[in-house]
Order: sequence, then structure tokens, then C-alpha cells
Amino acid sequence: MQGFDYQTPTRLIFGKDVIAKLPEVMTSLGKRVLLTYGGGSIKKIGLYDKVIELLKDFEITELSDIQPNPKYDPSVLDGVRLCKENDIDVILAVGGGSVLDCSKAIAAGAKYDGDPWDLISYKVKAKAALPIVDILTLSATGSEYDYYGVISRTETNDKIGYGDRLVYPVCSFLDPTYTFSVSKKQTAAGCADAMNHIMEQYFTEDTTLLNDGFCEAGLKSLMVNARTCIEDPENYTARAEMMFACTLGCNGIYSLGNSPSGWPLHGIEHALSAYYDITHGEGLAIITPRWMKYVLSDKTVDRFVKYGVNVFGIDPTLDKFEIAQQAIDKTYAFFEEIGIPMHLRDVGIDDSRIGEMAHHIAVNEGLENAYVPLSEQDIANIITASL
Amino acid sequence: MQGFDYQTPTRLIFGKDVIAKLPEVMTSLGKRVLLTYGGGSIKKIGLYDKVIELLKDFEITELSDIQPNPKYDPSVLDGVRLCKENDIDVILAVGGGSVLDCSKAIAAGAKYDGDPWDLISYKVKAKAALPIVDILTLSATGSEYDYYGVISRTETNDKIGYGDRLVYPVCSFLDPTYTFSVSKKQTAAGCADAMNHIMEQYFTEDTTLLNDGFCEAGLKSLMVNARTCIEDPENYTARAEMMFACTLGCNGIYSLGNSPSGWPLHGIEHALSAYYDITHGEGLAIITPRWMKYVLSDKTVDRFVKYGVNVFGIDPTLDKFEIAQQAIDKTYAFFEEIGIPMHLRDVGIDDSRIGEMAHHIAVNEGLENAYVPLSEQDIANIITASL
Repeated sequence: MQGFDYQTPTRLIFGKDVIAKLPEVMTSLGKRVLLTYGGGSIKKIGLYDKVIELLKDFEITELSDIQPNPKYDPSVLDGVRLCKENDIDVILAVGGGSVLDCSKAIAAGAKYDGDPWDLISYKVKAKAALPIVDILTLSATGSEYDYYGVISRTETNDKIGYGDRLVYPVCSFLDPTYTFSVSKKQTAAGCADAMNHIMEQYFTEDTTLLNDGFCEAGLKSLMVNARTCIEDPENYTARAEMMFACTLGCNGIYSLGNSPSGWPLHGIEHALSAYYDITHGEGLAIITPRWMKYVLSDKTVDRFVKYGVNVFGIDPTLDKFEIAQQAIDKTYAFFEEIGIPMHLRDVGIDDSRIGEMAHHIAVNEGLENAYVPLSEQDIANIITASL
Repeated sequence: MQGFDYQTPTRLIFGKDVIAKLPEVMTSLGKRVLLTYGGGSIKKIGLYDKVIELLKDFEITELSDIQPNPKYDPSVLDGVRLCKENDIDVILAVGGGSVLDCSKAIAAGAKYDGDPWDLISYKVKAKAALPIVDILTLSATGSEYDYYGVISRTETNDKIGYGDRLVYPVCSFLDPTYTFSVSKKQTAAGCADAMNHIMEQYFTEDTTLLNDGFCEAGLKSLMVNARTCIEDPENYTARAEMMFACTLGCNGIYSLGNSPSGWPLHGIEHALSAYYDITHGEGLAIITPRWMKYVLSDKTVDRFVKYGVNVFGIDPTLDKFEIAQQAIDKTYAFFEEIGIPMHLRDVGIDDSRIGEMAHHIAVNEGLENAYVPLSEQDIANIITASL
């Protein structure tokens, strides 16, 4: 079991209608609010109006149109400018992981005099950040309970995971009813994203019985509940459990004591969405079973057996490699069942830039230190197998 | 799934030799330290000397001899007096749950002008508390990661669970090697205590697949690792995993979203240790299978089936009540296997005060609202069955 240093200061307020507590939480943080959101779905579900009504005594500046795979330019740069121009006290992010990730970069950038990219690219360590509160509308990234954000810079094909304890949300409002209107496609992608977060903590060298059980519970819960959410989008119980299983995804709690895996799947997928702007969860779902097949070996087979037996209930008396192969097939079949297009060509990626992407990943993601080390050629092979 | 409002500010620093960071953590909290500990085991293992050496630049006042089932008089009252006399900035608790629980009551009492019992008995809500740092030496109560303390007042046979967010430890140092010297008896009792914490969250009306999986993982991990710790006390991996599974016990993370169970077993056991000063974990282990048998019914049997199948691997095709009965028998057998005396008479309790204890519990513990409501007669029956 590995050592760790763990602290999550974020307050989670979970349940139906919990945003009634929003004014109380915001009051302690300041008067001038930057309200960040995406493409307007929060207006369709009436959440925007509710927030404006609840915050009628606050001074609100808005940053809207934050896109999936949130962009450094214009979103982060606009947000930082708005914070400085309006002397913002606190950011209220209303949306999913992209809005939150973007808000985290803004929160740090707003308290920094130079180019915010210095912070995102770890050239400079932030000294302060604005406080962030969020109201979650999509179950997926777990950004509401971690201190990471992923920011894309289009001109350089960079998609960088930025982390700083300063950008932990102060408080996350988690009302499952705000996810009732999430499409089947986004529900499935969110499930795949969260499952992948757990798998990237589970498939590693050193794990504990406790954390294996936590991860297996998370994976099983996500599969059962995503199926229900897709069939019956207003099923509160399923939306609620899916939301919470996702929220814990990147916070560490699934795997405290495990050795780090190096997050090889996220490393590869970040380049796919940086080059092609595909849906992150779909990209992950597509490469996951191909990566699994690629890294299956005498050295890793026992981990796949554990996964297959405990997550999918595969007969433990079968041959080890047979169990592993079945587990990989069932992973693929589950993603397919929930409607994820399971080939990169289905999401608009062909073989024309594989070498370029593999090189970018090999240079930037450190996957030579992953659970199973991956060279540039390995990365290219996994992407090719996913076409 | 139930709503919740959850935040745990405590920092966990886990691993071998992590107390090297103690001076850094303490420096931010103040110069004048109340060092609290128990009967001297921290001196035997060299930890006391290490702490004194690490804190050579601090002003240290000591409160020692804190007993198991920590006493209001003298321990809490002495601690509060020492804090006030010496203008203490921060409490450093070195020990197990009793030292920590006592330190929590002291932390709140030190910032209160009246009788500290006002706070413990919830007559008055604390407005402030001294910060607490701890170095854990016993895997059991989870006090290092929650905001509860249990304090006994001998003259009234009260043993009260006191909770206030103000007394969350600021930082808990968790070094499994400090538990190498814990006796077989205390290792077993600690395991039983932590298992019971999880069961009291698991056996309830409304649960989720996620939390069921978390609880089942906790229970399985504790059983496997406690066996190893008892056979091989210096097995780092087993001590480490047991420590962490215990640490999460009362923090809420095992069961966020579950309905409350009313903690019936703790309600009963607190009276047993208040009247007879028995080891808390042993008392819990003795009454647990008797309570299980008593509350097993058509209404609860499915929960016992889930427990039996998922924790003990009992054949799910058997009759439901057969599975439940086997699960209860296996619970009993496990506690017996790790050396816990499984009758109250073995720990010095006879039938002479059952009525009195049952009355005390019925009046003070609110068990009419438990998962399975318990009347005074029910409580007396469960204690009688445990003799």
C-alpha cells in the first residue's frame, strides 16, 4: 500500500432542490459573481432563471458559450479579463465538466498578472485563485470534486490537464434532477468518462482489497445506473446514483493507497480530442478495450481476471486469459450497448494524423511511466486498432 | 437515494515515517501545544520521544493517562483546565480513539466559559474549538477522520456520543508501523469496532449499489487484514489497509446517500461500557450477531441475503432465510476466530442490571427510530441473548 497526502475541502450539497442554499453559500464569498455556463441548456431547463432569481442581491457578470473541450482562447482569456475588469469575488459555474474546468483556469488566471497559459502549462505556480462554486448539470468528469481542469489550445493542438489545490470548488451543488434532460449520447459519454476514471485507478501495479472493492462498486454502479438513465431519463434514483459515482471519480477516494497508473487512456484521448474535438467520453470508450487488449500479458492478466470476475461476474474457474478476453469483450459490448460509436472513424478520425498524434502524446504525456509503459509506436498501434 | 451535505476538512497524511511533516503542520497552528496521550504505550514504541524531538521548538503541556472509554472527570476537565491555564493554541493527540475523543471534548471545552458538559450533552452549541492534530496508534474508531467523540461520565453511567464539525482534526498522521505493537486483543476489538461502524451504515432502509459495494469492500478488507495482523503483527500491508479501512469508518463516505440506521448497536453498547467499562469493540462484537438474529424478519431478510452473498460468498441459490442465518453464523464465527470473547459473561457482565441498562438506553438513544425500531423490552431481550 502506497502513502498519500489527501484532503478534499469541497462541500457537497446533494439532493433535489438543494440550490435553495445557494445564496447562503455565496454570501460568505462575496458580492461580485462571474456566472459561467455553456451553450444555453441551463436556460432550457429553467436553471438559469432560478439562479438569477436566487442571486438577485448579487452583481452578476456572465461568461457564456463555454464549449466542450473548453478553449483557452476565447473562453479562459475572456473569463480572466471579465474577472479583472469587474473585480469579481467568486465564480459560479453552472454546467458540466467543461464549464467547471474552464472556470478553474479562470479562477487562477484572474489572480495572476501574466499570461494564464503560464499557470496551465505549469511554467508558473499560482499563488492564489478566486473561489469557485458550481451547480452541476452533467454526470461525468468529477470536476466538481477535484482540483483538475483540462484546457485545449487549438493552435498548438494542446489539451492540458491542469491541477492546483487552489482551484478545488468551495461548494458543489448536486441536484440529480438537472441531469434529467441530458441526452442519451451525453449520458453514455459521461458514464464512459467516469468508468474510465475508475479504470485508470484500478489498472495499476499496487492496489488494496479495499480500493479494488471501491472501484468495482463504482464500475458496477455506473453500468447499472447508466442503462436505467438511458431507458428512463427521469429516474431520480438512477440519475442520483450515477451523479454521485461520477463525482467521486477523480477525487482520489476510489484509490487512496494505490500506485499511480500514469493515466494512459486519458493521455491518448486528450490528443484525439485536441486534434479532432471529439466528445471526450466517446474517445475514451473507443480506445479503452483496444488498450486493454494491447496491454494484456502474463504480467497484467491477473488484474484483468479480477476485473472480469468481480465486475462482470465471469466464471472464475475458466482459464485466466479466457476470463481476461471475455472481460475486454464485455467492456466493449457495454459501451456499444449504451450507444457509443465504437470506432474512431465513426467520430470523424481517420489514419491521416496518427503518427503526428502519437508523437505529440509520447512527448507530452509521459506514458513511458504508465502501468504498462507505452512508446510512441505502442500509442500509434493502439490508435490504429481503434480506427 | 437520500440527500446529504458533506464536507471533511481533515488532511490525511498516510505512510511510513510521515510524522517528519509534523513540525510543518503544527507551525501553522501555534506554539503552545497540549500533548494528550494514554497509558504510556507511545513511550514503549519510541513515539513519545520522537514527537518531543520533532516539537523541540514548541511549548508543550502534557495530559497523560487518558483511559479507554475516556472519562469526563478527570480527563476532559483536566485537559480543559490545562488549556486555559497555559493558553494552549493546538492539541496534539497521540494515541487511539479514546485519546482523540477526549481531545475533541477538550478542544471545545477550552473555548467555552461554562461547564464543558453543557457542550457534550448538547445543552449549548460550541462557538469555537482549539485545532486538533493527531498521530494515530490504533486502527479502530475512525475518530481521526470524523467529528465525533464518545465521553463517559461515571457517576451517571452516561456514555455520550458528542459531535460538532468544529472538532474535525485538522490533520491526522497515519503511520501503520505505530500499530505493529497493538495486541491481538486490541487488534481484534478494533476490527470489530470498524466492522460495526460499516454494518450500522449498511443495515438500513434505503441504500445504493455504490454504497453497498463500498461497505462490502470495507467489511471484506477488514476481515482479511485483521486475520493477517493477528497472525503477523508487523505485516505492513495488512496493518496499512486495516488502518485506512478503519479511518473511513465514521466519516460518512461509506454511506453517503443511505438513510440513517439510528446506530442501534452503538446505542446498546454505549450503555454496556458505561456500566461495566468493557472494551467497546468487544461489546459491539458480542451484541452484533444477537441483534442480527433478533431483527431478521420478512422485512429485513433481503438485506441479510445481500450481506451474506456479497461479504461471505454464500450460495445465492439457497433459501433466503437460510442465507441470512448462515451470514449471522459467519459473523459470529469470524469474531470468535479473531479471539473475541463472544458472551457478555466473559467480559464480566451478568443479568443483574439488564433492566436498568435497557431503560437507560431506551430513554437516551432514540432506538424507536432505528432501522428496526427497538423498545426497552427489545433492548433487554438482545442484551439477555448476549449474556
